[in-house]
Amino acid sequence: MAMMTAKEYEESLRRLNLEVYMFGKRIDNVVDHPIIRPSMNALAKTYELAHRPEFEDIMTATSHITGNKINRFTHIHQNIQDLVKKSKMGRLLGRETGCCFQRCVGMDALNALSIVTFDIDAKHGTKYYDRFINYLKYVQEKDLTCDGAMTDPKGDRGLPPHKQPDPDHYLRVVKERDDGIVVRGAKAHQTGAVNSHEIIVMPTIAMREADKDYAISFALPSDTPGIIYIMGRQSCDTRKLEGGHLDQGNILYGGHEALVVFDDVFVPWDRVFMYKEFEFAGQLVEKFAAYHRQSYACKVGVGDVLIGAAQLAAEYNGVARASHIKDKIVEMNHLNETLYCGCIACASEGHKEPSGTYSVNTLLANVHKHNVTRIPYEISRLSQDIAGGLMVTLPSEKDLRSPVVGKWINKYFRAHSGLSTENRMRIMRLIENLTLGTAAVGYLTESMHGAGSPQAQRIMIARKVNLEEKKRAAKKLCGISESED
Amino acid sequence: MAMMTAKEYEESLRRLNLEVYMFGKRIDNVVDHPIIRPSMNALAKTYELAHRPEFEDIMTATSHITGNKINRFTHIHQNIQDLVKKSKMGRLLGRETGCCFQRCVGMDALNALSIVTFDIDAKHGTKYYDRFINYLKYVQEKDLTCDGAMTDPKGDRGLPPHKQPDPDHYLRVVKERDDGIVVRGAKAHQTGAVNSHEIIVMPTIAMREADKDYAISFALPSDTPGIIYIMGRQSCDTRKLEGGHLDQGNILYGGHEALVVFDDVFVPWDRVFMYKEFEFAGQLVEKFAAYHRQSYACKVGVGDVLIGAAQLAAEYNGVARASHIKDKIVEMNHLNETLYCGCIACASEGHKEPSGTYSVNTLLANVHKHNVTRIPYEISRLSQDIAGGLMVTLPSEKDLRSPVVGKWINKYFRAHSGLSTENRMRIMRLIENLTLGTAAVGYLTESMHGAGSPQAQRIMIARKVNLEEKKRAAKKLCGISESED
Amino acid sequence: MAMMTAKEYEESLRRLNLEVYMFGKRIDNVVDHPIIRPSMNALAKTYELAHRPEFEDIMTATSHITGNKINRFTHIHQNIQDLVKKSKMGRLLGRETGCCFQRCVGMDALNALSIVTFDIDAKHGTKYYDRFINYLKYVQEKDLTCDGAMTDPKGDRGLPPHKQPDPDHYLRVVKERDDGIVVRGAKAHQTGAVNSHEIIVMPTIAMREADKDYAISFALPSDTPGIIYIMGRQSCDTRKLEGGHLDQGNILYGGHEALVVFDDVFVPWDRVFMYKEFEFAGQLVEKFAAYHRQSYACKVGVGDVLIGAAQLAAEYNGVARASHIKDKIVEMNHLNETLYCGCIACASEGHKEPSGTYSVNTLLANVHKHNVTRIPYEISRLSQDIAGGLMVTLPSEKDLRSPVVGKWINKYFRAHSGLSTENRMRIMRLIENLTLGTAAVGYLTESMHGAGSPQAQRIMIARKVNLEEKKRAAKKLCGISESED
Amino acid sequence: MAMMTAKEYEESLRRLNLEVYMFGKRIDNVVDHPIIRPSMNALAKTYELAHRPEFEDIMTATSHITGNKINRFTHIHQNIQDLVKKSKMGRLLGRETGCCFQRCVGMDALNALSIVTFDIDAKHGTKYYDRFINYLKYVQEKDLTCDGAMTDPKGDRGLPPHKQPDPDHYLRVVKERDDGIVVRGAKAHQTGAVNSHEIIVMPTIAMREADKDYAISFALPSDTPGIIYIMGRQSCDTRKLEGGHLDQGNILYGGHEALVVFDDVFVPWDRVFMYKEFEFAGQLVEKFAAYHRQSYACKVGVGDVLIGAAQLAAEYNGVARASHIKDKIVEMNHLNETLYCGCIACASEGHKEPSGTYSVNTLLANVHKHNVTRIPYEISRLSQDIAGGLMVTLPSEKDLRSPVVGKWINKYFRAHSGLSTENRMRIMRLIENLTLGTAAVGYLTESMHGAGSPQAQRIMIARKVNLEEKKRAAKKLCGISESED
Repeated sequence: MAMMTAKEYEESLRRLNLEVYMFGKRIDNVVDHPIIRPSMNALAKTYELAHRPEFEDIMTATSHITGNKINRFTHIHQNIQDLVKKSKMGRLLGRETGCCFQRCVGMDALNALSIVTFDIDAKHGTKYYDRFINYLKYVQEKDLTCDGAMTDPKGDRGLPPHKQPDPDHYLRVVKERDDGIVVRGAKAHQTGAVNSHEIIVMPTIAMREADKDYAISFALPSDTPGIIYIMGRQSCDTRKLEGGHLDQGNILYGGHEALVVFDDVFVPWDRVFMYKEFEFAGQLVEKFAAYHRQSYACKVGVGDVLIGAAQLAAEYNGVARASHIKDKIVEMNHLNETLYCGCIACASEGHKEPSGTYSVNTLLANVHKHNVTRIPYEISRLSQDIAGGLMVTLPSEKDLRSPVVGKWINKYFRAHSGLSTENRMRIMRLIENLTLGTAAVGYLTESMHGAGSPQAQRIMIARKVNLEEKKRAAKKLCGISESED
Repeated sequence: MAMMTAKEYEESLRRLNLEVYMFGKRIDNVVDHPIIRPSMNALAKTYELAHRPEFEDIMTATSHITGNKINRFTHIHQNIQDLVKKSKMGRLLGRETGCCFQRCVGMDALNALSIVTFDIDAKHGTKYYDRFINYLKYVQEKDLTCDGAMTDPKGDRGLPPHKQPDPDHYLRVVKERDDGIVVRGAKAHQTGAVNSHEIIVMPTIAMREADKDYAISFALPSDTPGIIYIMGRQSCDTRKLEGGHLDQGNILYGGHEALVVFDDVFVPWDRVFMYKEFEFAGQLVEKFAAYHRQSYACKVGVGDVLIGAAQLAAEYNGVARASHIKDKIVEMNHLNETLYCGCIACASEGHKEPSGTYSVNTLLANVHKHNVTRIPYEISRLSQDIAGGLMVTLPSEKDLRSPVVGKWINKYFRAHSGLSTENRMRIMRLIENLTLGTAAVGYLTESMHGAGSPQAQRIMIARKVNLEEKKRAAKKLCGISESED
Repeated sequence: MAMMTAKEYEESLRRLNLEVYMFGKRIDNVVDHPIIRPSMNALAKTYELAHRPEFEDIMTATSHITGNKINRFTHIHQNIQDLVKKSKMGRLLGRETGCCFQRCVGMDALNALSIVTFDIDAKHGTKYYDRFINYLKYVQEKDLTCDGAMTDPKGDRGLPPHKQPDPDHYLRVVKERDDGIVVRGAKAHQTGAVNSHEIIVMPTIAMREADKDYAISFALPSDTPGIIYIMGRQSCDTRKLEGGHLDQGNILYGGHEALVVFDDVFVPWDRVFMYKEFEFAGQLVEKFAAYHRQSYACKVGVGDVLIGAAQLAAEYNGVARASHIKDKIVEMNHLNETLYCGCIACASEGHKEPSGTYSVNTLLANVHKHNVTRIPYEISRLSQDIAGGLMVTLPSEKDLRSPVVGKWINKYFRAHSGLSTENRMRIMRLIENLTLGTAAVGYLTESMHGAGSPQAQRIMIARKVNLEEKKRAAKKLCGISESED
Repeated sequence: MAMMTAKEYEESLRRLNLEVYMFGKRIDNVVDHPIIRPSMNALAKTYELAHRPEFEDIMTATSHITGNKINRFTHIHQNIQDLVKKSKMGRLLGRETGCCFQRCVGMDALNALSIVTFDIDAKHGTKYYDRFINYLKYVQEKDLTCDGAMTDPKGDRGLPPHKQPDPDHYLRVVKERDDGIVVRGAKAHQTGAVNSHEIIVMPTIAMREADKDYAISFALPSDTPGIIYIMGRQSCDTRKLEGGHLDQGNILYGGHEALVVFDDVFVPWDRVFMYKEFEFAGQLVEKFAAYHRQSYACKVGVGDVLIGAAQLAAEYNGVARASHIKDKIVEMNHLNETLYCGCIACASEGHKEPSGTYSVNTLLANVHKHNVTRIPYEISRLSQDIAGGLMVTLPSEKDLRSPVVGKWINKYFRAHSGLSTENRMRIMRLIENLTLGTAAVGYLTESMHGAGSPQAQRIMIARKVNLEEKKRAAKKLCGISESED
């Protein structure tokens, strides 16, 4: 059976022996840690929905290797429809979790490697593609979650890897052995790292020959000795430790990010997918980035939640029929669907690579992600407009439950006699969560920088548009002969 | 042979006997009138490109009625790919003409009628669909251009048709005869009207029973007696009369719009496609509007021209390498491709109607068009930023050609020794044309109001999004039970 | 001596006996509570800077009653320059504290009352103005901080006060006695409430006769029996309890808001400034709101901090010379100075009221505040763009200090060999604080809703612009005679 | 008598013997040429209003040289109030003319020279200031209009003046004589040039010693032999030649711009205000630019007209009460008043220069102008939204007057039975004029590039903000010691 249930997924995580640190201390039980648990819940949703008949078409696929039914997160896109369904899967899960569910980065790494290992072999006669397909089969059959690890710490941004004062600021091979290689370095901003079974490492920039020790890609079990996880903080993270639930906003799900250190870690050869073929580092980055920029389809789903929450806030506040409120809800929807158009269009305009894998349209995937660096901020601003100031002046759940002041909360924050104060508070906290709290990390800042910062997209847009064709068209219309000047 | 050449198209127009007025006078030779001619050239491009092998896939289709190869502008969309190709055809022609080429409105009317006539028959047992298919076959075989006429003058916006002080402010049947009906009224803002062989009339709003005399749809030859065309003015229209060319900006193509008056015009029954089935008026409007909002794909093509022109202006001004200029070009492209995503996505997310016709996704088509009411304005602003003030202070072509002052123009407006002053002027005039002149009518104001004003799209967006689903998702995440309040 | 030092201010707070609740428990020592303390520090800054010679001109004034030198926060504006200096004082303190310093609301209440009590007396022959001046003298001589309390809970937004299902949803008089009145109700979103010596209550909307029991204004010592404070939560509030400092971002200052309940509180007559003169409720709201909308000058100062932090982040990240970074810094400054223009202009265009008090230009004060509901959000977005994703994935201060993982943090988050990792982390945390954390409450959501939500400003803008004059000008230019239609 | 009437101004222009070309031909009667006349009317308004008692305070001033009452356009600002009144004068005239009234550029040149000539003398012991004051007295007493001529053609933007392939691409001295100098070159984009009595020439960029032949400033009568004017075209310029009026939109006023060629023109020494003091060229540019960026106060007045026109369009269309229309009118006003805040604030924050002249705040003047490059475009877009598509599809005035089709125009473009179709057309044409036609040149493109293109303002903003102070504030709040790194 190729698909785990959510329960099986959770149990599989318990069997891992990860070295995880948070607030300066090692965490013994990662799965049940109250700050991490919601992120596990979110990832588990990718397993749960795959078993729900109504989502089967979106959440599952047929493996092109085995012919088995597999979770789409382990699938290699075989046609345009696969690409479109990937975008829809992202929106679906974003809407159901209201946060980052962390599993697309591994899917994007697998698909990018399926293209690039094939192309390396075609040029160099190597056997990376076979190795990769074997690995892929393992991932598909076990229904594993892979962390896709690209972003190096980068050190001095003005210098290439081999010129860094600290040579470990980009991950590199430090030793070659008969049975494999030893690597050192770190990967930053690793989303969902401690909820993953595997970690797939890729280079983070295009490289030249002098950087070839950095031009490596491989996969490892996440609990391989020498891999150390240091959890990042999020706004409002410790609310999850407070005992109550209401103040968390999203009481079920969350995300996490970690710094992953590779302290001289051994990788066996059968897990190595690129080794010093520096001229393919850029292609791997570009392919992964394009797929991953498409993956920000998920923010449309989170936007759905925020729009729903804003509408509910308006209703609980008793102002849902005011024309300016209705107009702001329309604007939020317009913006959110504009985002949706981007992730659908870059899929719909995809094409087949030599390996048979379908790739998204790189230009449109970058355009989509670039809008993701803007539009959620405006949707967020509008939701705060609709929510009202109460969102940031509301007393705590403990005040609501207090025998002393609870009555004042209940009395004075009731807007409609028929509606509960508590539910009004819940919606306020959800909007706070999405626009200032733990989920804002994913909905806003990660939307800005995940899968590449805005400037990275602008560089790709500049590179991918056909400016000469546009100039030709303009010249013709105003009567400038092409050869003239 | 089902496809005319551009030349045959022009000749076919000469055979029409249209009653056209401009500047208060009747025009004898419509085809060669210097103000109208560029719009004929633009429409002719839809014929010309259909014969070019490199555009065959986009510009032509196979008729689902006859199996013949036809111009896509006469085609009924048979699948998703047809819808996507329609968007690409719009961008292509926008880029090649730099203006409105006027033929999509008829295509959209045909497709909308193919759906609605079928649905009326299903309910009422009428025979409209057969009539329509006969008419369609005629249009396809003759490769005709149809004007799709929807917008009534509307009179008092607060009143339904039958309550208007002037009952003709919505087009209506004034007499029923054995052989057909007599209609009276007008249609405003008719794009490309005098370049069309046929005019297809539809109602402009949803209607109730009291308005049933207004719930009519039919098609007529454009030179049917009683149809009168009064040409609208455009910014800078008379530059086309000046003799030179350079000052026109776009020296080849343009658009036009007209008020079309129906002064008691007879329509035979076989050309009537809806007759008092008032409850379908709204559906016809919505279907046509959705298709036509998709059609604003063309503005992406016009955007291509403006981006090309801005890049050329930067080069002729000698500033193309300045980082702020390059960044503005990226921004223009990002915005233009964001538009493109909209017209691709609403096609890609299309679906099959009972008649077999494929319809675009109505929500996304409205979102696309709504972006068209904003984005071209910002692209236009950026192009003026890049062009520089010279765009609006440049002397005339006659000054350039003058033996007295031409030397000063040539000397002082030369930016680079290697580049011609005249070409710099041509580019300035093209940007002027697109942002202030005749083409600005199409690229800006028509983008705002064509296929429905912004508020019309906002109403549709409000109606088509599933707000309840979003509320459900939000409630679940913050712990509000659905039934609670 | 009319001006307290910061130390004296702190001591004066210790002498108060406030009834304050937080997390469901009463707080014994308000002044030293780690979550509240930073807000006290911020307010104390208004005392400290008044003693600094370089800020004397901005921070102090000469009382028009006593001729004594007083803190400007207790001053009644006597001329245009006073109004302009008020705006500059706001920017100064915003820049020095990076948060809301909470003292302007009382200043704005005093100034509004100085106008309205005078006008009530002029109409009704009452003696409110004398009472008020006596009170003002007390405030000035003691250098007190006043909370200005306007916002009622409002209950059902569609109903006036006297029709509310719960009559206490607007604060009202419930008993009239010989020596004063007894009031009941609550005021929400009270900024700096527990750092104040006095609380000045005003009605929150224009009223009609039926609401006259709600048309009351008065002042009370903040620790009057029956006044209960319930603290609101802020994003990341509990980081202040964690022991370290770095993770707080702003390690010195903060703000707070509270729900203030009036549980049948007695007010002596000499503290009553409006009593059932319902027709002046609207004027008091409008005057207070105009002053308070000007007060959002402070956000320009907070913007200064965020711009400085973004520039430092760019430097610590090693990218400060990239052209796109420089351009974003320019944009942030442009937007921030655009805000500054608003608060200067509404002061510069002020005028003298009958009482002698100078009032800001109401239209421009509303325009200014309306920009405050938009511009800080965009500055915030740009700062996150510049900061990079590290801002939300950074491990905790405890990780940095950890003997186990501290070395990895230090190694891998060092961007430049010459710069300390810890300082890079400090700047990231400051930007987090301002855009997601406790200070985001003030810089973003309070900017949205404080002094009235956006729609409140739009209503005032609609009311204050002279549309008829604009129509007259337009008609004249296009030749429409005024009387024609 | 120091102030001319409008009539006297017109007569004074008739006495000039200007060499003006348009459409390749010399114009004999400049004053009565139908394309130029509206611009003369607009400039004449600056004379007319100065005689109207209600505008005396704004339109006139007391000369600090003679003590005479003078037109403010010839005044040297003596205090902050003068600066503020200048902004108000700009808005007033913008509202009364709906276009560029062309006289501020000379005022700004006079004020800038009053500062810089003083500073040159202070350094070099020259006598420019006395010369300038004599010249100023002449201008004030005769109430002359001066063209302020700064923008050189610039040739290759990457090269300084003395390295240009064509040395005349910056205006320069070509010969020094006992009685004066001979100059050669051109000035582009000269607003109102042929309506001016005088032309004041200034350098256009900061210069080094090698460019000293270009570092010159002087004034000449506009009809000095060798000065040649070539008129620039504007969108829709020739509508003024058509005989009717309605289609012009603004039937009274307009603007114009010209290329001014200096074909070896002699300047006597007493008219030379800078001669090779290259190190002051930059200061003169910066001072003039700051004043002139303030002058874009006029666009607020043009915005008033456009808002009035949009409101009238909504009324004539019968939709003025729709909530989305009202909201758009509010937005237009909000944006327009935001602009107003900028021109008031940069005046209010002005300061005294060594010469005694008051200068605007350079940072805020640049911020103001930068907003002028954006906000009018959005106001324009909103006005087109409100106007409706009719604005660009409306038939001509000749159609309206036609005995054949006039009845159809009247019937079908009537929206309300009580309102005239003709007036609806007039308003449509006015909006067309302001957003696409001759006035769009001033309201949009000139707003973009006049007084310096957007990037020029960004460079000044970067230079004038105190980034170090902002960094200091940020460091202090997050605990970074200043000296640390």
